[in-house]
Amino acid sequence: MTDDEKFVIDDERVLPETTKLAHENALDLIALGFKPSNTFIIYDVEDIDLLYDIALEVAKRITYSTARATFGFQDSTNLGWIFYPAVQAAPCFIHKKLTGENVPALIPAAIDQDPYWRITRDIAQKLGYHKPAQIHNRFLPGLGVGGKMNASEPETAIFTTDLPELVKQKIWRAFTGGKGTVAEQRKEGANPNICTIFQYFLYLFEQDDKKLADREKQCKAGETLCGDCKKELAERVNKFLAEHQKKREKARNIVDKFHIKR
Amino acid sequence: MTDDEKFVIDDERVLPETTKLAHENALDLIALGFKPSNTFIIYDVEDIDLLYDIALEVAKRITYSTARATFGFQDSTNLGWIFYPAVQAAPCFIHKKLTGENVPALIPAAIDQDPYWRITRDIAQKLGYHKPAQIHNRFLPGLGVGGKMNASEPETAIFTTDLPELVKQKIWRAFTGGKGTVAEQRKEGANPNICTIFQYFLYLFEQDDKKLADREKQCKAGETLCGDCKKELAERVNKFLAEHQKKREKARNIVDKFHIKR
Repeated sequence: MTDDEKFVIDDERVLPETTKLAHENALDLIALGFKPSNTFIIYDVEDIDLLYDIALEVAKRITYSTARATFGFQDSTNLGWIFYPAVQAAPCFIHKKLTGENVPALIPAAIDQDPYWRITRDIAQKLGYHKPAQIHNRFLPGLGVGGKMNASEPETAIFTTDLPELVKQKIWRAFTGGKGTVAEQRKEGANPNICTIFQYFLYLFEQDDKKLADREKQCKAGETLCGDCKKELAERVNKFLAEHQKKREKARNIVDKFHIKR
Repeated sequence: MTDDEKFVIDDERVLPETTKLAHENALDLIALGFKPSNTFIIYDVEDIDLLYDIALEVAKRITYSTARATFGFQDSTNLGWIFYPAVQAAPCFIHKKLTGENVPALIPAAIDQDPYWRITRDIAQKLGYHKPAQIHNRFLPGLGVGGKMNASEPETAIFTTDLPELVKQKIWRAFTGGKGTVAEQRKEGANPNICTIFQYFLYLFEQDDKKLADREKQCKAGETLCGDCKKELAERVNKFLAEHQKKREKARNIVDKFHIKR
């Protein structure tokens, strides 16, 4: 990122108990290299005084019918979830409130957040704002079957705070495209397409396309075994995390400099 | 009211444009004799930072199904209205947050607000609070047929800021229980039960029960005509309003002393 770009990062959680979690997430963002000079972190609950008037103007213009069709709300959905799309929309428009300058927001977010920006786009112009746009980020897959990442199964995800030994364990138990026995795999090869370990190389831990292609080829040919890939991935992930966790702890000292109310 | 009672007054409006209206309403309350020493006025939008975390805890525990059944929400209802019951509940519980003392709230409110406190009572104990209780206040009737007061027909209501001449006009045009002609009324008498003017004496402008009973008797006997009652009511209302409006203007200087964030 360059110094002349501006970033507004919104935590996506609606509940007060998660305010602490939002602060922890902020540390990860800072560790990744965001700069206080052009980064403004908003915590929904703490900073609701900045968001609420905008959220109400948004909420007035979205009917329950639209929200239900967009988010699949049901009779059992609680009122917090129903209002949340309005709160989520507010950061798209807050720049004008804070600076007087009406600029379109560009939101880097995972694909599951897309419905929020779509309904925000629907009402933006009625409120005198530009429509926000999203960069669709892909989800980093999990380590379970089918690459699922499940909050109730922490072993299917590597957290940025995991210790090296735990990371090794999680990777060791990850779902791969390997065969039942070594002999079988040497003979028939394995399937990188369904392998969560290979996805980690593909997404983050192999920068070199040539080397990635070689890894795929050797996997399919049965030249490498799952253990080889797992060992190598664990080393790379732990190398990254050692550095990241160091930066993350340092970020505690400066996290306040990123707060929109600094 | 005595000095050892505590009042929390909540404006009932959900929208930012009405913040000014809330401030105007506060002036009326102050003019009626509330004291800054034991009155804490909360403006929903301005003071949302005090209310929001409580509102979210409430919102989490109310399903759309309950809210729809309670308030008659429909597909066309906007998200602001749907979340509003949670915001409305927050002042019932704010005392504990501000003082640490868990005391039950007693809410003087018109009967139409009753559903808000009912769902608040349903979830109060789950959140560790006492159930709030309501004093059911009656609506002062309007001046239209059937005593209706209609926001789209300002002539059916006397506002606390109305000038004397306008008050006279409104009262003069009010619906009464009178007959078509003077002769008819002298002969058959009139009906105070359906008369908006009589309701104003009953509710506010005749303290003396004996005199009120006499007025009723004379009306039914055709001894007084509607014009007599209207003239007398207009005098009393304008006398009250002259005093009230003076106090109301003085209140502008001290309204900030009532704000919960003073």
